[in-house]
Amino acid sequence: MAKMKAAVFVEPGRIVLEDKPVPEIGRNDALLRITTTTICGTDVHILKGEYPVARGLTVGHEPVGVIEKLGADVRGFSEGQRVIAGAICTSGHSNAALCGVHAQDGPDSAHGWRALGGWKFGNTIDGSQAEYLRVPDAMANLAAVPDGLGDEQVLMCPDIMSTGFAGAESGAIRIGDTVAVFAQGPIGLCATAGARLMGATTIIAVESVPARQAMARRMGADHVVDFSSVDPVAEILRLTAGRGVDVAIEALGRQQTFEGALRVLRPGGTLSSLGVYSSDLSIPLDAFLAGLGDQTIRTTLCPGGKERMRRLMDVIASGRVDTRPLVTHRYKLDEIESAYELFANQRDGVLKVAIVP
Amino acid sequence: MAKMKAAVFVEPGRIVLEDKPVPEIGRNDALLRITTTTICGTDVHILKGEYPVARGLTVGHEPVGVIEKLGADVRGFSEGQRVIAGAICTSGHSNAALCGVHAQDGPDSAHGWRALGGWKFGNTIDGSQAEYLRVPDAMANLAAVPDGLGDEQVLMCPDIMSTGFAGAESGAIRIGDTVAVFAQGPIGLCATAGARLMGATTIIAVESVPARQAMARRMGADHVVDFSSVDPVAEILRLTAGRGVDVAIEALGRQQTFEGALRVLRPGGTLSSLGVYSSDLSIPLDAFLAGLGDQTIRTTLCPGGKERMRRLMDVIASGRVDTRPLVTHRYKLDEIESAYELFANQRDGVLKVAIVP
Amino acid sequence: MAKMKAAVFVEPGRIVLEDKPVPEIGRNDALLRITTTTICGTDVHILKGEYPVARGLTVGHEPVGVIEKLGADVRGFSEGQRVIAGAICTSGHSNAALCGVHAQDGPDSAHGWRALGGWKFGNTIDGSQAEYLRVPDAMANLAAVPDGLGDEQVLMCPDIMSTGFAGAESGAIRIGDTVAVFAQGPIGLCATAGARLMGATTIIAVESVPARQAMARRMGADHVVDFSSVDPVAEILRLTAGRGVDVAIEALGRQQTFEGALRVLRPGGTLSSLGVYSSDLSIPLDAFLAGLGDQTIRTTLCPGGKERMRRLMDVIASGRVDTRPLVTHRYKLDEIESAYELFANQRDGVLKVAIVP
Amino acid sequence: MAKMKAAVFVEPGRIVLEDKPVPEIGRNDALLRITTTTICGTDVHILKGEYPVARGLTVGHEPVGVIEKLGADVRGFSEGQRVIAGAICTSGHSNAALCGVHAQDGPDSAHGWRALGGWKFGNTIDGSQAEYLRVPDAMANLAAVPDGLGDEQVLMCPDIMSTGFAGAESGAIRIGDTVAVFAQGPIGLCATAGARLMGATTIIAVESVPARQAMARRMGADHVVDFSSVDPVAEILRLTAGRGVDVAIEALGRQQTFEGALRVLRPGGTLSSLGVYSSDLSIPLDAFLAGLGDQTIRTTLCPGGKERMRRLMDVIASGRVDTRPLVTHRYKLDEIESAYELFANQRDGVLKVAIVP
Repeated sequence: MAKMKAAVFVEPGRIVLEDKPVPEIGRNDALLRITTTTICGTDVHILKGEYPVARGLTVGHEPVGVIEKLGADVRGFSEGQRVIAGAICTSGHSNAALCGVHAQDGPDSAHGWRALGGWKFGNTIDGSQAEYLRVPDAMANLAAVPDGLGDEQVLMCPDIMSTGFAGAESGAIRIGDTVAVFAQGPIGLCATAGARLMGATTIIAVESVPARQAMARRMGADHVVDFSSVDPVAEILRLTAGRGVDVAIEALGRQQTFEGALRVLRPGGTLSSLGVYSSDLSIPLDAFLAGLGDQTIRTTLCPGGKERMRRLMDVIASGRVDTRPLVTHRYKLDEIESAYELFANQRDGVLKVAIVP
Repeated sequence: MAKMKAAVFVEPGRIVLEDKPVPEIGRNDALLRITTTTICGTDVHILKGEYPVARGLTVGHEPVGVIEKLGADVRGFSEGQRVIAGAICTSGHSNAALCGVHAQDGPDSAHGWRALGGWKFGNTIDGSQAEYLRVPDAMANLAAVPDGLGDEQVLMCPDIMSTGFAGAESGAIRIGDTVAVFAQGPIGLCATAGARLMGATTIIAVESVPARQAMARRMGADHVVDFSSVDPVAEILRLTAGRGVDVAIEALGRQQTFEGALRVLRPGGTLSSLGVYSSDLSIPLDAFLAGLGDQTIRTTLCPGGKERMRRLMDVIASGRVDTRPLVTHRYKLDEIESAYELFANQRDGVLKVAIVP
Repeated sequence: MAKMKAAVFVEPGRIVLEDKPVPEIGRNDALLRITTTTICGTDVHILKGEYPVARGLTVGHEPVGVIEKLGADVRGFSEGQRVIAGAICTSGHSNAALCGVHAQDGPDSAHGWRALGGWKFGNTIDGSQAEYLRVPDAMANLAAVPDGLGDEQVLMCPDIMSTGFAGAESGAIRIGDTVAVFAQGPIGLCATAGARLMGATTIIAVESVPARQAMARRMGADHVVDFSSVDPVAEILRLTAGRGVDVAIEALGRQQTFEGALRVLRPGGTLSSLGVYSSDLSIPLDAFLAGLGDQTIRTTLCPGGKERMRRLMDVIASGRVDTRPLVTHRYKLDEIESAYELFANQRDGVLKVAIVP
Repeated sequence: MAKMKAAVFVEPGRIVLEDKPVPEIGRNDALLRITTTTICGTDVHILKGEYPVARGLTVGHEPVGVIEKLGADVRGFSEGQRVIAGAICTSGHSNAALCGVHAQDGPDSAHGWRALGGWKFGNTIDGSQAEYLRVPDAMANLAAVPDGLGDEQVLMCPDIMSTGFAGAESGAIRIGDTVAVFAQGPIGLCATAGARLMGATTIIAVESVPARQAMARRMGADHVVDFSSVDPVAEILRLTAGRGVDVAIEALGRQQTFEGALRVLRPGGTLSSLGVYSSDLSIPLDAFLAGLGDQTIRTTLCPGGKERMRRLMDVIASGRVDTRPLVTHRYKLDEIESAYELFANQRDGVLKVAIVP
């Protein structure tokens, strides 16, 4: 049986490169040879043991690759084709999927929904930080990379860009909206780009790291508020003449950013939450307008499926958004443990790392 | 100057009937002679001093009456016409109103929004528990009562029915949805009726008071869960075979009901919150699916304006919903202090009281 | 190879019962033993040669049956289970399906959409007027019949009810809307029921056949306009005091009904079109308000997929709507040629026929 | 009584500059001193007698000016303030306005809707091609020009930009959409800009005039199809690999462009129609997919109201779109007859003319 290198979760604190068998595929699956992948903040939660996965699981959920082999029942794709697959892998046939909520793709039962069920790679099945990846339900999940686009150009599509843009989409941003984006990590930066893409005319990014502030402007922010030097709530209310924002996007997963987002929201506005939280949240009565403010709080997990990936790659191909500047570091798969060390500690101004097998 | 009787807030614990001048009206206003009004839970908050209003203010925001006099610039109505006006009185011209969010009707400035700004009667201007009521922006707010409908038939339209139905509407209920409604006071009962009206096919009402349980079934509930004898979350999950509900409506304003509503929500579902909260809320991490469940929490204040009132009265006129059973007690305006005493203490199975000047 | 009876298109004017092999199934398919099916107006178009299908194709697209056999890769269902499948059979994985537009389910290619592509049974693959039916992509399309529901109770779900309700849904009917439904054949009757289910408070059915007029009232119409004795446009404007309707549903597929629906539409309203047209349509300039009326014309093909079927059967199980009265005649599969003769000529007050193998 | 110059419709073929009294204003009105206005295609229809208005009416509906005087009941604005008002002047209080459909602002009656009723200036009341303009319902319609924006920067907001953007908005354009815009006159150009602003990634403009083709690219078109040298339907299908477009915007008002827009639409797509038609339209059966293509045809009249104007001016102020290049010619009000002559005959590459009293 052929072997491959794969980054495997061993125990809290240890993700190591190991030899594993190249995955076998079923009739509806595809086998990808990974050409580039990356590390996500969620992988760091796994590394730290904050999000439990099975010992021995290959981690990673952001694949760019080449179709090495197609299952017997897969049509519409060909071996050798360059493709990506979304971090969210939809079955296409669960009740959740048939409602268009692919991230909550359910089990094959009367139930039909499963919380986070669409996130399979590096969660419930082996992931993309390896030489090869099995993609289930390939016809629903593979998307051909348009000619002329390099791996790093589409590397953000499977997760970061899909999630960040979804933060803007869940906010139902309209032409002329004022939008605040709390935190400008990779997802927050993509939320900023998404808000710009949807027609927001005043985009306020909240961030204290200078490199991320600069990148926020590059992605479309009109104003950057440094929470380390001013109270971001007061500053955003000042910038909006007391009106607040139409849409506030939370992109960190902390009480402070969640609460800040709520406090700058105008009545009738939407708080679009992207962060992964790790403790209970508190909703202050006054910020919540006692429940009488016609406000919406909406959480969004990354959308997936090949149509989503096609659209995101079109955004790249059209030149509307360029996410290459987010790739600040490059590693070989052999060096992935170093890459984790850098990324988990946010050293050297890292935003995203490209990992090449 | 003509005098009238009016129920006036004096100090916490005291709403008393006093003589006041009949209101004067401006050119865009109307003067209503109240024929029937009622007391709302919010009025009880005012009575208890939990919601502060100006000393001397006439309370009440649910008017049914006859046009006594029209301002010089009001067209489309005539004196002597039977009308209602919504609890929410829109200006029609604020930025909020032009966005359709009349409950947050703003000031006439660059700002354009004001939290709860559309709620004027018995809050920022004199209200309806009186012999006469001034209705500002009459052309936007007066709605003619269709022939054949009695006062008590339309008495719930200004607030209870508009709010309850809006709880269903904010949940974007679709044909075939499963909906839970937490608490079956007057607003929860109308939310139940609204869910039924929008095509929900499994409606689960949570309530412990037998008379309200019976009324819940009458308003359209398929199941009633008595939280005093079973854990409502476990019971609702059992009733839905573990799937949870598509939409959960909170109609009380407590941590317990808010949290229960969140815990029974399927991934991708909507928690539609109607309650008036009086303390900070906590969102448990697990119920919130760590922010990754594609869930929506939406708060809704009563919609208003004459088009809303017209539609609600059409619901009554068509026989789709009959809210008369909600009127359990009747008082003369002279007896309103007794009515408050009964209503505030929820004695004698009271749901709503009709007050007739 | 086992044989079965099947109603087969031979040539225009001839659909005949023939012996055919029982279908073989692939790994993602299911084989149903049909227990009840029915004939659709579309089948009559096929019979007459107005809609071309391949010679030898088994017709019919409304299956109720029992799972005889499951493909090797199908999970979540069991042999012997009572199920239905929608007239629209989604792949679940085309770009169209991933956008939720299952009726336009596309080919497995870059294209991703195919006009009417979701309609497969009795159109591009063998259909349900037979003893056995192969259901492709079974995990996306099979829906278990709830205990206690008989075949005739769910017989309308695969097409008529899904289509008719979708006419109401595409109209985005809201609580308090006024709706006109042009033509009260089986689909129009279900559109009437759907409008009622979504909260329309004034429903005006246009129909001249007395039995259908009576059924329209039973399905929820408040008014019935007989176009053979009054001008329906004038009458609907009279009934609405000159205002017109919020939503007009066309359920026949003729210039006259399309134009009538447009002429009774208020500015800003929606014409929801369900009919299958057989010639070019003309939009009169005045009815179209010169293109300046903020009007919407939306066509809808039957929605499909197991989640849709689940919801529709919930409508039946909850008792909200009962479509059994639509089944006016019953035939054995052996007698299907007689059933076509009756149905195609609309004899004996036929609405729908139940066909039992 | 003070006199002013005004461009007045006399008879078909004659709009002439006349002396008229400066308008008197009511308590809810404002008097603007016009500083810049422009001529619209609709004014040319009026000039030619194709759209009838009252003899003696002042034409024009695109005002930029200074508040000369405020009615006694108008608050939130001050005399001397620079403002615009939308071509659509909403009452704020009709049933149509309360539904957010300001362009169909109705009469003050039970009816509540009037086709095109929101278009008042230069249609049912005196318009903006004059030294002074009365703005009714001033609190709903006046919008302050942000500091730093010149008259020509905001001159397109009242109509052209509001209408063009609304064409994109009515198409519900999403990130990654492919959009075709038929005709690149001023409104089509703004529709192109709007599609870009909402996140369309492939924008195909159809136009034959070289200067307009160049402007289309400047406004955001990715491709320009010259219908005088290629069949635009075939070319758009070629550019989209046979898939067609998600949204087609019609911006001329002719059978040919309407039909072309329908023919390039993918199943499930939306035809957003902005053109003013002058004859009946034909919908070809095949392009309409026999009514089974899940297609939407939506017409849109210019949105109005101060919130709309505020948002559009924010688009300008943020630098997202610059409409100044659309102003190709400038005239004094005294020369307006020459301006009409140029504009009606589309001489000298005219797009829009600025008229300065």
